[in-house]
Amino acid sequence: MSRSPQTGSAEDRLIARYFAPLARHPGAMGLTDDAAVLTPPDGSDLVLTNDTIIAGVHFFPDDAPDAVARKALRVNLSDLAAKGAEPAGFLLSLALPPDATEQWLAALALGLRTDADRYGCPLLGGDTVRTPGPATISITAFGLVPRGAMVLRSGAKAGAAVLVTGTIGDAALGLRLRRDPAAATRWGLDRPMREHLLARYLVPEPRNAIAVAVRAASAAMDVSDGLAGDLAKLCRVSGVSAEVEVARVPLSDAARTALAAEPSLIEAILTGGDDYEIVCTAPPERVAALQAACTAGGVALTEIGRVGAGEGTRFIAPDGRVLTFAQPSFSHL
Amino acid sequence: MSRSPQTGSAEDRLIARYFAPLARHPGAMGLTDDAAVLTPPDGSDLVLTNDTIIAGVHFFPDDAPDAVARKALRVNLSDLAAKGAEPAGFLLSLALPPDATEQWLAALALGLRTDADRYGCPLLGGDTVRTPGPATISITAFGLVPRGAMVLRSGAKAGAAVLVTGTIGDAALGLRLRRDPAAATRWGLDRPMREHLLARYLVPEPRNAIAVAVRAASAAMDVSDGLAGDLAKLCRVSGVSAEVEVARVPLSDAARTALAAEPSLIEAILTGGDDYEIVCTAPPERVAALQAACTAGGVALTEIGRVGAGEGTRFIAPDGRVLTFAQPSFSHL
Repeated sequence: MSRSPQTGSAEDRLIARYFAPLARHPGAMGLTDDAAVLTPPDGSDLVLTNDTIIAGVHFFPDDAPDAVARKALRVNLSDLAAKGAEPAGFLLSLALPPDATEQWLAALALGLRTDADRYGCPLLGGDTVRTPGPATISITAFGLVPRGAMVLRSGAKAGAAVLVTGTIGDAALGLRLRRDPAAATRWGLDRPMREHLLARYLVPEPRNAIAVAVRAASAAMDVSDGLAGDLAKLCRVSGVSAEVEVARVPLSDAARTALAAEPSLIEAILTGGDDYEIVCTAPPERVAALQAACTAGGVALTEIGRVGAGEGTRFIAPDGRVLTFAQPSFSHL
Repeated sequence: MSRSPQTGSAEDRLIARYFAPLARHPGAMGLTDDAAVLTPPDGSDLVLTNDTIIAGVHFFPDDAPDAVARKALRVNLSDLAAKGAEPAGFLLSLALPPDATEQWLAALALGLRTDADRYGCPLLGGDTVRTPGPATISITAFGLVPRGAMVLRSGAKAGAAVLVTGTIGDAALGLRLRRDPAAATRWGLDRPMREHLLARYLVPEPRNAIAVAVRAASAAMDVSDGLAGDLAKLCRVSGVSAEVEVARVPLSDAARTALAAEPSLIEAILTGGDDYEIVCTAPPERVAALQAACTAGGVALTEIGRVGAGEGTRFIAPDGRVLTFAQPSFSHL
């Protein structure tokens, strides 16, 4: 882990103590070199992604640091999964505020270690600096695909099915609950439902288990800015339109319960973001096999609509009405 | 360039306007996908490095944004050069403060574009977010070497020569001048000398022109935290010692003039950092060829000392005295 000039030996000691134990990959050089090295198998492509999360913007400053660490890594893992890539490792850029304690850093490192092991995505290196601003965690993750096999946003064709993994809207409702705990009562949520939504906001569940299966999709992206806004992006870059039947969008029991109590939540569910599910398209004849492969990986893949010619995305309510959204993607915190 | 939830369409427009024109590499997907893709030639290794710079910590908030951008990229390019790697591209993680103007962003993008072209290191993707803190620019750069050819810090052996590129101490003196313009008079600097030192602090000159030549070194690293501290790190991880003759450390005319006026500046010169030169070791029989290859690349490579057994680094003054330093690496700004 290279260090910038103003990070002195105190930082060196912290890195050695908390991050070197994560850097067991030979390419990490035990964090003692300027750079890391990765040997891609011949015939492969490297998939590269970067996401940054900032205290007070993307997470609450009092969130548990191990959860923060896992979120930081998982939002990147989610991008890899949506591209059909298997994780190869990550670099960590950590800007620590003056009030960051050693305890906070220890818990952050433990969270990273847990998920690096779980997802087979080792720490390869990075940079640690001091900032007068909020804690800022920027992760660059590397994935591998066979050459030319990265799944693009731009491959959707008219006639294809639109599909989405898992359930949509949980994190958006979890964020509302976090800011307004009384909503749980209004929405009629029992304790497990409430906890489900809060957990889905705090730590996403990226769909890396089905990354290889996703390679059979014609287009894919991860849902981070809300299903409506992200599907619109996919359609725009593919030069197609899409129509989604809102009744088919998969919801958790918790989201379904909240929605029954407060039907206007449909907007938060479809535009709220932080889902970290995968939206993808596939020709109708490939849908069953794709769904079976995902099910085998433990992830539901639900058909929710159809790609068409032209442009635009339409979300059709059960009564045939086309939904319009006040804001296409949600502003968090 | 993937965007985080709270970056709305205004950010999308800024990215499209200022950064998409930089993303001409096919693997960048025009910044319209979740991730970028890089196809390493069969038989190659990817060299990965990350450095982050923060306003008020690593650069002055009123530094010209194009200079800031170039510094952000060049500190990473310097790591690639020291590892013998040729640039393949970079990801940009940009955290923008509330007061970042479109003009500032435009100049930042222009600076990146200039150096991306100059060094053949295209923008591949990244992330743009808003921060309540200072502007934070984190770059992850990718380089290519033939498999197994990355030059490590850990390869130094007793008996090898210690060599360094360019000149040492300019940036440290440039920073002092920046904070104390009157020092120019005290040090007897003429205007070109003053400008040389200030420029060396503002925008480093990474030694990518000789990256391939550096592969003949037995160990190398870039000098970012000061020659004394960085050589000590190289020796520690190689399990060797080193002795440097201070009189042989290459200085610019400006640094030599300042040092003559104020001999105590030797500490700032040797420990001040931000040099972005390369310190390396090579067996004596390879020194002449290595120097010739660097000269052919337009970069001087000066022999300054010798690797020994045991541990520790000693800087020997012309009078035979061993220098001791109050702080091994400088605290900037």
